[in-house]
Amino acid sequence: MSMSMVHPSVHPIEAPPMTDHAIAIPRHTLKDTQGMPGTLGGFLLRFLQFSFAVVSLSVMATTSDFPSVTAFRYLVAAVSLQSLWSLSLAVADIYAILVRRGYRNIKVVCLFSIGDGITSTLTFSAACASAGITVLIGNDLNDCAQNHCSRFETATAMAFMSWFAASPSFILNFWSLASK
Amino acid sequence: MSMSMVHPSVHPIEAPPMTDHAIAIPRHTLKDTQGMPGTLGGFLLRFLQFSFAVVSLSVMATTSDFPSVTAFRYLVAAVSLQSLWSLSLAVADIYAILVRRGYRNIKVVCLFSIGDGITSTLTFSAACASAGITVLIGNDLNDCAQNHCSRFETATAMAFMSWFAASPSFILNFWSLASK
Repeated sequence: MSMSMVHPSVHPIEAPPMTDHAIAIPRHTLKDTQGMPGTLGGFLLRFLQFSFAVVSLSVMATTSDFPSVTAFRYLVAAVSLQSLWSLSLAVADIYAILVRRGYRNIKVVCLFSIGDGITSTLTFSAACASAGITVLIGNDLNDCAQNHCSRFETATAMAFMSWFAASPSFILNFWSLASK
Repeated sequence: MSMSMVHPSVHPIEAPPMTDHAIAIPRHTLKDTQGMPGTLGGFLLRFLQFSFAVVSLSVMATTSDFPSVTAFRYLVAAVSLQSLWSLSLAVADIYAILVRRGYRNIKVVCLFSIGDGITSTLTFSAACASAGITVLIGNDLNDCAQNHCSRFETATAMAFMSWFAASPSFILNFWSLASK
């Protein structure tokens, strides 16, 4: 990814127009909207995704009996992937902010959009599966005495928060891809 | 909805241009793509969503012990909503096909897109929660003798199929909304 970031994908945000355009192009495009990759809002979203995913992973991993439930193992795998993906894109955002450039290459935005779609869908499905089992243990079976209900609930809630933070990234990328 | 469908939302697909346009407008827009509301492909997608949701609902409702698990009750509610929404839009598609018109009003497409987003997210989350519990019963606890494992699995699989059929509708509507 670092190879593709060096040249064709990053362009100066406020580059002077190279040619005279026949039609006026609005100065403020969606590409400069906060939350897009390469902006401070985008970095904050990535940071939130990463933090919630790591908290979810840590809380679930501290329970001794999570490997006995398939959905909890799946949650650990999904939030691990989400945290790695979000960390990578947070680093890419920091790089773009430091060199004061944005991501304008359609292939890069497409890659970000597909990656966001896959990781956020995995995180959401894992959070839903864990929520189903947490509610089964806590409400339907009333078996919280033998289980780490509060830790399961915390890990599930953090995975949902990570998905909430990932959704704006995906929707903004997908929207900017479609509006090209 | 029938009121808003009568006039401002439906327009002739091949209406002659009323004014001379300065720029050429391509004849084949995304609005005529199969799968959009008002096309045969769109109707087929709605029909598949409705069928899978109804099969999932019926199979889950025939198990005597589904009300004891919260996630299964949630699945029944979610696929009921999905089937009602898909049926309404299938009827709207049939109407549009019969009068040979398409849905071009941006407010109507926006409404369809938001409705698709909500119903498909609910169906997907319910399917994930049910899948987590079905796998817990079948694989982790090995307790299929006392439970209707195969019916739970069928209902879950049908809910996933309904979500698979709902995704193209949502993505096409959202894409056409963004590309306006």
